[in-house]
Amino acid sequence: MVIAKLMDTIWATRKSEKLNGLKLMIAEISGGSRDGERLIVCDVIGAGIGDRVIVTTGSAARRMLEDDLIPVDAAVVGIIDESCESA
Amino acid sequence: MVIAKLMDTIWATRKSEKLNGLKLMIAEISGGSRDGERLIVCDVIGAGIGDRVIVTTGSAARRMLEDDLIPVDAAVVGIIDESCESA
Amino acid sequence: MVIAKLMDTIWATRKSEKLNGLKLMIAEISGGSRDGERLIVCDVIGAGIGDRVIVTTGSAARRMLEDDLIPVDAAVVGIIDESCESA
Amino acid sequence: MVIAKLMDTIWATRKSEKLNGLKLMIAEISGGSRDGERLIVCDVIGAGIGDRVIVTTGSAARRMLEDDLIPVDAAVVGIIDESCESA
Amino acid sequence: MVIAKLMDTIWATRKSEKLNGLKLMIAEISGGSRDGERLIVCDVIGAGIGDRVIVTTGSAARRMLEDDLIPVDAAVVGIIDESCESA
Repeated sequence: MVIAKLMDTIWATRKSEKLNGLKLMIAEISGGSRDGERLIVCDVIGAGIGDRVIVTTGSAARRMLEDDLIPVDAAVVGIIDESCESA
Repeated sequence: MVIAKLMDTIWATRKSEKLNGLKLMIAEISGGSRDGERLIVCDVIGAGIGDRVIVTTGSAARRMLEDDLIPVDAAVVGIIDESCESA
Repeated sequence: MVIAKLMDTIWATRKSEKLNGLKLMIAEISGGSRDGERLIVCDVIGAGIGDRVIVTTGSAARRMLEDDLIPVDAAVVGIIDESCESA
Repeated sequence: MVIAKLMDTIWATRKSEKLNGLKLMIAEISGGSRDGERLIVCDVIGAGIGDRVIVTTGSAARRMLEDDLIPVDAAVVGIIDESCESA
Repeated sequence: MVIAKLMDTIWATRKSEKLNGLKLMIAEISGGSRDGERLIVCDVIGAGIGDRVIVTTGSAARRMLEDDLIPVDAAVVGIIDESCESA
């Protein structure tokens, strides 16, 4: 997984029907040599703009959604506690 | 997923029969540290040259095509709204 | 797999229920051209901060947990012996 | 997928039996920020040295071979038409 | 796949039981823009330190081991012939 900061919500009116109702957000990897890399992630745990989150990628993202047919490759799996300074 | 801009259609007369009828396009990742990375993506939602799109990669691309036997690893899942400025 | 050093534990109170009880740690890849890249990994073999470990990524991480439904994409599979100097 | 140019055939007398009879070639990604990255790809559509090809990676490569047990992670899926200038 | 040179054996006394008896080696990608990137790979075809090998990654590595439950993401699939100069 990677640590990323949620930057904004992203809107796509024309999209796969399988994405209907899914919240998609722009995330930016923070820390380490991939710092600044941007991803689009889906969120089902209520994370918001500005939150530092843990993002899982690849086929694991579909496990987070509990639906192997949704075409996403990145999902928020946790919101990092504010007291967690090293992240 | 990543944000990319569709640059052109790509033509391959000799190809896997499983790709027959699939539209393949050159996309360029925009924003973040992977800015400028090129991908070939397939599109089944009617995106066109110049559109900013959301691209899913890996096994998720086959979920977009709803056919697990097609040998693609990247697919357009949504067209980003023009009003979406931060993308 | 990659060689990484475990830097710290990471805490996320709000997270997927499937991650409950799993230890998540910040790891930093050491050596080679990816030196300094950060990952979040899960550990089920009792590794600790400061340990140099072998991390497997992608769908293989779920094999380490023996549960294909957990949404993780990186896991510690071994702790490198201290006598192993080239790692 | 990525655009790559086929540079040479690669020979490995000692190899997995599952690779017997498969043509393996050195390919170099062309264009974009990954320009110059080298991959070993398998080819089953008759591509040759110098051809510009579309390469699929990951589990999709096994779909190209129509055999999920072959341990390859990259395969040529199409030969780009010479008239295709932007590729 | 990628071309890599085997640099050393790596030892991990504490590890997943599923890795017992598997030879793990440090490999370094050679050639192209990923030159110098380090991987830990498993080898079941008798490759040795100094050999130039073809490494498959991701779920394909488990096909090399013929066991989908082993948590590895990279495996040697062939030893490149010494006469193969362009590799």
